Amino acid sequence: MKHYYKEYAQIIEVGPRDGLQNEKVMLSTEQKIEFIKNLSDCGFSAIEFSSFVSKKLVPNLSDAEAVFKSIHPYEGCSYSGLVANNAGFERAIACGVKHIAVLTSASETFCKKNINCSIQESLSRISKLMDRARNNNMLVRVYVSCAFDCEYEGEIKNNIVVDLIKKLDEMGCNEISLADTTGKANPVQVENLLEAILKLINAGKIIMHFHNNYNMALTNVLSSFQMGIFRFDSSVAGIGGCNFLPNSGGNLATEDLLYMLHAMGVHTGIDRDKVVLAGNKILRLLEHEKISSD
Amino acid sequence: MKHYYKEYAQIIEVGPRDGLQNEKVMLSTEQKIEFIKNLSDCGFSAIEFSSFVSKKLVPNLSDAEAVFKSIHPYEGCSYSGLVANNAGFERAIACGVKHIAVLTSASETFCKKNINCSIQESLSRISKLMDRARNNNMLVRVYVSCAFDCEYEGEIKNNIVVDLIKKLDEMGCNEISLADTTGKANPVQVENLLEAILKLINAGKIIMHFHNNYNMALTNVLSSFQMGIFRFDSSVAGIGGCNFLPNSGGNLATEDLLYMLHAMGVHTGIDRDKVVLAGNKILRLLEHEKISSD
Repeated sequence: MKHYYKEYAQIIEVGPRDGLQNEKVMLSTEQKIEFIKNLSDCGFSAIEFSSFVSKKLVPNLSDAEAVFKSIHPYEGCSYSGLVANNAGFERAIACGVKHIAVLTSASETFCKKNINCSIQESLSRISKLMDRARNNNMLVRVYVSCAFDCEYEGEIKNNIVVDLIKKLDEMGCNEISLADTTGKANPVQVENLLEAILKLINAGKIIMHFHNNYNMALTNVLSSFQMGIFRFDSSVAGIGGCNFLPNSGGNLATEDLLYMLHAMGVHTGIDRDKVVLAGNKILRLLEHEKISSD
Repeated sequence: MKHYYKEYAQIIEVGPRDGLQNEKVMLSTEQKIEFIKNLSDCGFSAIEFSSFVSKKLVPNLSDAEAVFKSIHPYEGCSYSGLVANNAGFERAIACGVKHIAVLTSASETFCKKNINCSIQESLSRISKLMDRARNNNMLVRVYVSCAFDCEYEGEIKNNIVVDLIKKLDEMGCNEISLADTTGKANPVQVENLLEAILKLINAGKIIMHFHNNYNMALTNVLSSFQMGIFRFDSSVAGIGGCNFLPNSGGNLATEDLLYMLHAMGVHTGIDRDKVVLAGNKILRLLEHEKISSD
């Protein structure tokens, strides 16, 4: 059976945050700014530029303010900063960030290990933050970690994710990014979860964030796209993954995502050749071998 | 929109032929036999074991007879040998092979470069061979190279492939493997081509053979599976690819294909853990780094 495919998809480039946070090589502020400018030149409409977290926990991203202040304000690109707690939120407000990302999880165990609170506590934090975010005219994106599977708890039941999304939507969160933290999601699971979610919430509010541990990320994107989702997180050259899980490496590479979408005739507004160049540059800086295709 | 997925898929393991033919490290006959026995232990119902081609052209596979004679005759596994010309066909008959694979292409230029004849000449060769194959109770699989794209001719028009398949089917070929030789196929192209093909021919006769140059192989499998195709070529640990094209490396890894299908609840009869072990062993022998996931 042939599909009707949307003509447009948005790719949210998360490399500067999700990609760099756990790297062994620590880039200078200038190198990060250059990296983000290179990405901005590619035509992305959304880039996650850094994280307002404790310097101790994520030393690689301790210069979020300096990076943000130096990013050229590209028309049409929204730069989001990850905010892990109240202190981070204050820092984001203070430097004029208008798009933040916050964290919750569909797994209690992972939530505790990742952000040191229960799921309910994380929802309370987000709820408290929403009022001030609205007053400051900020967009709020929420990452739901372990939306499909958890290293500690195994497969996550759909109703847990659906309930979570319902609550986040009621709080007024603008974007909900469903993360396949262990890379174990499959197209059938994606279809089943999205079928339930899209009865409650507009597809435009949902972003899919697939990891590539089992090379399943692109198939899960295809499956989501077939279900009506059209916003996807990815990381240039596939850098990054998850901070706290062993063998969790491998974000979906932006180059691969672009290859597929463009080959299918889907517009993204992004110049893939430039992304490949930006990816090769960052891999050299991070002293990685090339992992994506040209 | 959710899909109805078939509960069963067949995987044809092509590693011993497609995987080894172009490797720098040349395995001994004993090592190849051991490799195929390891694969047979995994539960494959079809394995391409070697190639009856000239020793000059493919020195790695010059011992097809010896390999075939020593393969344990596993119940339920069909061992196919590639046959490149009449001499190869005679060799296959002489040693009692009951399943052969022959070559054609949807690109004139590639056909000439790969098997040194026109498409029409390749069809005549296959047609001549079919009578004796039938008399010898042999199954004949045909590889259609460049079914989507050609390094020399660019995108291949669907009607060329459809015409070719129609002729091959009329000749009585039992299996037609459509190869994405450059790895450039995409799900929309797959859907369009298969829609046209499946009006003419039963899905069970078609096998999809995707290369992974752009990490698109699994998405193209998913797309084919959604269209009703349920037979796929893959190569353990992703070894092999195409002999004659630069940067064409990378067959779809059997481990990744199995991960996806099993995660989706699709039965294959194959033990993925054993495939991972067989893959790790062959990568060590070939002095490759590990490229597939556990």
